[in-house]
Amino acid sequence: MKSYYMKISYDGSLFQGYATQTHHKTVQDELEKILTLLNGGEFVRTFASSRTDSGVHAFCQMVQFDLKQNYQLEELKNKINKMTKNRIVVNDLQYLKNGSNVRYDVINKTYTYIIAKDRNPFLINYSWYNSKKINIEKMIEASQYLIGEHDFTSFCSSRTKAENKIRTIYNINIEEKKHLNTNVIFFNITGNGFLYNMVRIIVGTLFNVGIGNIKPEDIKNILNEKKRGIHTYTAPPQGLYLKNIKYKEEFYE
Amino acid sequence: MKSYYMKISYDGSLFQGYATQTHHKTVQDELEKILTLLNGGEFVRTFASSRTDSGVHAFCQMVQFDLKQNYQLEELKNKINKMTKNRIVVNDLQYLKNGSNVRYDVINKTYTYIIAKDRNPFLINYSWYNSKKINIEKMIEASQYLIGEHDFTSFCSSRTKAENKIRTIYNINIEEKKHLNTNVIFFNITGNGFLYNMVRIIVGTLFNVGIGNIKPEDIKNILNEKKRGIHTYTAPPQGLYLKNIKYKEEFYE
Repeated sequence: MKSYYMKISYDGSLFQGYATQTHHKTVQDELEKILTLLNGGEFVRTFASSRTDSGVHAFCQMVQFDLKQNYQLEELKNKINKMTKNRIVVNDLQYLKNGSNVRYDVINKTYTYIIAKDRNPFLINYSWYNSKKINIEKMIEASQYLIGEHDFTSFCSSRTKAENKIRTIYNINIEEKKHLNTNVIFFNITGNGFLYNMVRIIVGTLFNVGIGNIKPEDIKNILNEKKRGIHTYTAPPQGLYLKNIKYKEEFYE
Repeated sequence: MKSYYMKISYDGSLFQGYATQTHHKTVQDELEKILTLLNGGEFVRTFASSRTDSGVHAFCQMVQFDLKQNYQLEELKNKINKMTKNRIVVNDLQYLKNGSNVRYDVINKTYTYIIAKDRNPFLINYSWYNSKKINIEKMIEASQYLIGEHDFTSFCSSRTKAENKIRTIYNINIEEKKHLNTNVIFFNITGNGFLYNMVRIIVGTLFNVGIGNIKPEDIKNILNEKKRGIHTYTAPPQGLYLKNIKYKEEFYE
């Protein structure tokens, strides 16, 4: 028996989310089907660092699993990539150090969110198209209230199962740029962990600031309310990307 | 009755080609359905500059049609964009000058083709993934034999209906670059017109040169044979983009 971890990327529009569901085509289902084949038919369970929702993309999802067979790393990586037909791409695959865990050894995660300002058919499944006039400076001002350790109850779905809703956000970067010849707004959000829908609610609520529905300083009150209020908004899934995950040094061999 | 033309873009992976087909979801079918609704239910026939195959993308397809109703241009453009839900995006819409024609008034067309050298799940439907070692200089050398006026019988599908197979290629540009964080090869090919599958066969055959299957100077012999031979190859559709169309000055009002 040998433990592995792999860094994968996938286009969320081709799957119904990461985590396995009955009768659904999820990333986990596809991976476990392939790994089970590579394990001589014996079922392989995978564990991932993050559950991405239906439509959400990943540049860097971390997944761990055990196989009875001891594969050469490059060989195993190539086999999986061939079997997924690049729908899920393994960018890196290594042996997992004894005791390391892709979920518990995380130091921080970064998510990217893209709002497209112009219509572009190539961004339908890869951004939130919104042509409203958005004040970037006001969103940047508002985002500063979210930096640091806070109870994020107001910024998570009521379906959140986590009991402890305290998380730390280290950085929120918001900038306008060109992406596939289109004017877009990029959000990069780094934190030690995120509650269910938390990134999408942060983006949707900052968007509410950007279009003038609420003021930057209202973010402080929303945080203090500690419940989902009428001024928060959940941005749609297709603009969200799991961008990067940073692990403790001890995670690696 | 008023005539219009519009410049549209679409993601070919969402359609079964441009031209209408029974029981198929094509760009033309979707446009005609929408325009017929905007024409009070009376059927609207559209005419396009190019028929793009299933899976082929367009940054700039030109389409003309007549409506009984006289719409404000901006209003009509917005209505169509709303109704397609950005699956087909109208980038420009104008009145068509009397006697102008989107197919016959073309001076030249440019197609782009993308080969992805690395695996990237976000490029599955938007490039030809091929990890073989490709010699760019040899492809550039080979491409020079195609420049100018030639009989392109060897470079078109046997299903081509056009009787006259003489076309002029003005320019072929081949370069390596980064696209969505991936190493790709971009081909830009400009000509006065293209036969059925001609761009894909040019790219596939240049690829055969790039991987060393044939020599640059073999292109001359292939042209002279004036029939589809074993050394030509049709690159897959998903890497192809209709990039730009240039019209005679008289086309415009």
